[in-house]
Amino acid sequence: MTEQLQKRFSDQIAFLLEMDKMKNVYRRSYVLHEDRHENDAEHAWHLAMLALILHEYANEPVDLQKVLATVLIHDVVEIDAGDTYAYDDAGNQTKAEREQKAADRLFRILPPDQGTYYRKLWEEFEAGSTPEARFAASLDRIQPLMLNYYKNGLSWKEHGTRRSQVEERMQAVAVGSDRLGELAAEIIQRAAQEGLLKDE
Amino acid sequence: MTEQLQKRFSDQIAFLLEMDKMKNVYRRSYVLHEDRHENDAEHAWHLAMLALILHEYANEPVDLQKVLATVLIHDVVEIDAGDTYAYDDAGNQTKAEREQKAADRLFRILPPDQGTYYRKLWEEFEAGSTPEARFAASLDRIQPLMLNYYKNGLSWKEHGTRRSQVEERMQAVAVGSDRLGELAAEIIQRAAQEGLLKDE
Repeated sequence: MTEQLQKRFSDQIAFLLEMDKMKNVYRRSYVLHEDRHENDAEHAWHLAMLALILHEYANEPVDLQKVLATVLIHDVVEIDAGDTYAYDDAGNQTKAEREQKAADRLFRILPPDQGTYYRKLWEEFEAGSTPEARFAASLDRIQPLMLNYYKNGLSWKEHGTRRSQVEERMQAVAVGSDRLGELAAEIIQRAAQEGLLKDE
Repeated sequence: MTEQLQKRFSDQIAFLLEMDKMKNVYRRSYVLHEDRHENDAEHAWHLAMLALILHEYANEPVDLQKVLATVLIHDVVEIDAGDTYAYDDAGNQTKAEREQKAADRLFRILPPDQGTYYRKLWEEFEAGSTPEARFAASLDRIQPLMLNYYKNGLSWKEHGTRRSQVEERMQAVAVGSDRLGELAAEIIQRAAQEGLLKDE
């Protein structure tokens, strides 16, 4: 094997070992059957499962492989930048800068062709600039909504989250999928009726 | 929406909620940066990342989307059947029966077309009967080898695992990928030299 191919392979392995840290980035959502928060690796896997099973509901035709790649990598910048809670206004002001810096470091571990490709996928996800990015964003919003609802609103109660905040955040769901947008509206309605979400 | 389409959608959502239990099936491997075992959801996500980055090393041409689907679902039967440690001979005698029963229950939650398709993918994975299944199996073996090695052999030490056992199990790696087979051999060699693995 040439030295160049050897370096390519060892850079790829180094990136995959670095990725283990996704298992240590904890989100605000809880897993359903244990008393602990969900981490980014579990979240990304769950989104990929949603993509496999629900892609027929995307508003635009999507390349499933690209959706899968997008959801698998969409949060890797959080290894350096951390998870920013959706309703944390201060954190969200510095989020973009922190995440760009993280992307610089992480995607550059990969061989240039792969680093460029996956960074582009992540940028598209952030910008919502492709059908795959928009559908991935729908999944990224509906999944924690489902977890929070079926966990009896625990995360919402802890943060005093209001119905209007969740409704605003869930607008992105229907952009990628009308059917999932309807599901989000139904869940919010039920959550408010059941007192899981503050209905001001 | 017709009643039939409504049932399809609610069955899909029920399956995806059931899938949350993958986050509670713990393996023998440890995550690298916390003092705890890895769970099946994290493992499947990590394999999907390996597939994205390393598919150029598959021995046969593979459909990446199919490899991704395979690794994402390859362990779902463990929700009912539990994780069976690779070197647990007694557990492995009853494994097939327990997993078939689990597959019956879990894949039948899905609409029939999807349940049939994903069960077939899982059967192919178990049988190693397609290029995608063989490459997925390579990833499924090399990933815990990497974790065990970079975790200073903790899991091997706990179970008194011998070099010959690991070598036997890692034969499947080269079936799907010669390059990953070489990596496995290198890691085993180093692990034995460093005393992380019992070299009888």
